[in-house]
Amino acid sequence: MIERIAILGTGLLGTSAGLALRAAGFPGSITGWNRSAEGAQAALAMGAIDRIADDPLEAAREAQVTVLAVPIYATLDLMEKLAGVLGSEHLVTDVGSTKLQIAKAASRLFNTPERAAFLPGHPMAGKERGGAALGDANLFRGAVWLFTDDPNAQRSAHGAALVKGWREWVVAVGSRTIDLDPARHDELVSWVSHLPQFVATALSALLEEEVGEAPELKDVGGRALREMTRLGASPFSMWRDIAYTNTEAVEAALHALEQRLAHLRENLRTPALREEFEQANRFRRNG
Amino acid sequence: MIERIAILGTGLLGTSAGLALRAAGFPGSITGWNRSAEGAQAALAMGAIDRIADDPLEAAREAQVTVLAVPIYATLDLMEKLAGVLGSEHLVTDVGSTKLQIAKAASRLFNTPERAAFLPGHPMAGKERGGAALGDANLFRGAVWLFTDDPNAQRSAHGAALVKGWREWVVAVGSRTIDLDPARHDELVSWVSHLPQFVATALSALLEEEVGEAPELKDVGGRALREMTRLGASPFSMWRDIAYTNTEAVEAALHALEQRLAHLRENLRTPALREEFEQANRFRRNG
Repeated sequence: MIERIAILGTGLLGTSAGLALRAAGFPGSITGWNRSAEGAQAALAMGAIDRIADDPLEAAREAQVTVLAVPIYATLDLMEKLAGVLGSEHLVTDVGSTKLQIAKAASRLFNTPERAAFLPGHPMAGKERGGAALGDANLFRGAVWLFTDDPNAQRSAHGAALVKGWREWVVAVGSRTIDLDPARHDELVSWVSHLPQFVATALSALLEEEVGEAPELKDVGGRALREMTRLGASPFSMWRDIAYTNTEAVEAALHALEQRLAHLRENLRTPALREEFEQANRFRRNG
Repeated sequence: MIERIAILGTGLLGTSAGLALRAAGFPGSITGWNRSAEGAQAALAMGAIDRIADDPLEAAREAQVTVLAVPIYATLDLMEKLAGVLGSEHLVTDVGSTKLQIAKAASRLFNTPERAAFLPGHPMAGKERGGAALGDANLFRGAVWLFTDDPNAQRSAHGAALVKGWREWVVAVGSRTIDLDPARHDELVSWVSHLPQFVATALSALLEEEVGEAPELKDVGGRALREMTRLGASPFSMWRDIAYTNTEAVEAALHALEQRLAHLRENLRTPALREEFEQANRFRRNG
């Protein structure tokens, strides 16, 4: 029943979404728009989109489902503009990494019987580098795709059907969906996604200072070091909006880890070190 | 010229060493000893050793090269005992993760023309879990194998030839050797090996407390979370001796990371966050 999709932002996630939809058998049209022409052309050349749109609002008007795959502040900006030009025959969804501000904007701008529907989404998939060229039809396979929908959304029957249809495509590309409250979402990802990223960034930056002068010594760390610093390659451009829109939860998680590291440091020669290893072992065993 | 090797400790590293020597064409005998009989029998069944010795000292006396592949304090203990029973026709080497105490013991107990030779070694290879069953002929392929030899060692010609022969086998199993001063070794590994481990342990322990109650939510973190906590499965038994024998360097590294995390936390909304990401990016680019 969904026949026309617009993907606004053909970076890693947008391009992967187009490729994954095609691989899952989506038979309709996929129009793409990207702020830089190179990214849109790469997505077109890879078959992630059929056509490049000049204007994002026009592309959204012509589509039934519009996927916002741009950074968070760009998403919020497009939401304001799209609310003015779309109606009850449209669904807008997004892939942003924090959801509280987006969910609030959705309740304010969308989800009445006369307006377009908005379904806040967050696929837990990515790579440490972005860009259309890394687009991957299998990126969402086995991943969790979070939704933070408003239980009080008052959608048109058409909008509700599009929401149902989009959720089915998310499952079709191989993801498992979990529904969460937006505030709980942002707190949860501060622990399981944002904290690991900021730790990898701090660790990589520190090691660049300590052993960066002797590149041959990095090999000494082997696989363990490579894994613990892989996310150090993540670009600031991708994480700035996350730091800005989930500041308090990230601060709390970082502070808790600082205290945990201090506790471990003060107990390198006491039985508390054993407890810390056993607690860590439990996390991996139950995972 | 090396025809008889004894491996004392057939855990992950000892068993892998036996398998790797065989895979590289070592034609001589490999005798194994292990504190628990199960580990020795597993290594025998896998073909890592030809024969199980009842007594480690006797096994070492009968071999030309003895590889100590036990925890650090057990290594130091065996060094004391072996010094009393071996002579200038023997070489002892080890695979311990810290080297200062072992190198000091080597200078005190070995490396005179009348005594056995001792070559302190540290292959930068491992897995997050130990045990003979995980033994792997390719474990050392592409890894760095560190040596912290004493430049003032006064070895017999025979001992010197065995050192040269053992270094050749280390290269034959696929490792690249780097020679370091033992104090520099312990400082370096505190950054590139011990710090990543203790960070993964602290992060895993913290997350067990925060999200351990809801196992389905761990999937939300995806590949990034799995990677950043994989080392959380490392057993205390493996790391206790490292924490005890490299305490000051590990304390300094942990303290530096705590400060770095606090700096990042205090700058989530300032331009310093960009600098931190760019510094981290440099570490990965130059790696």
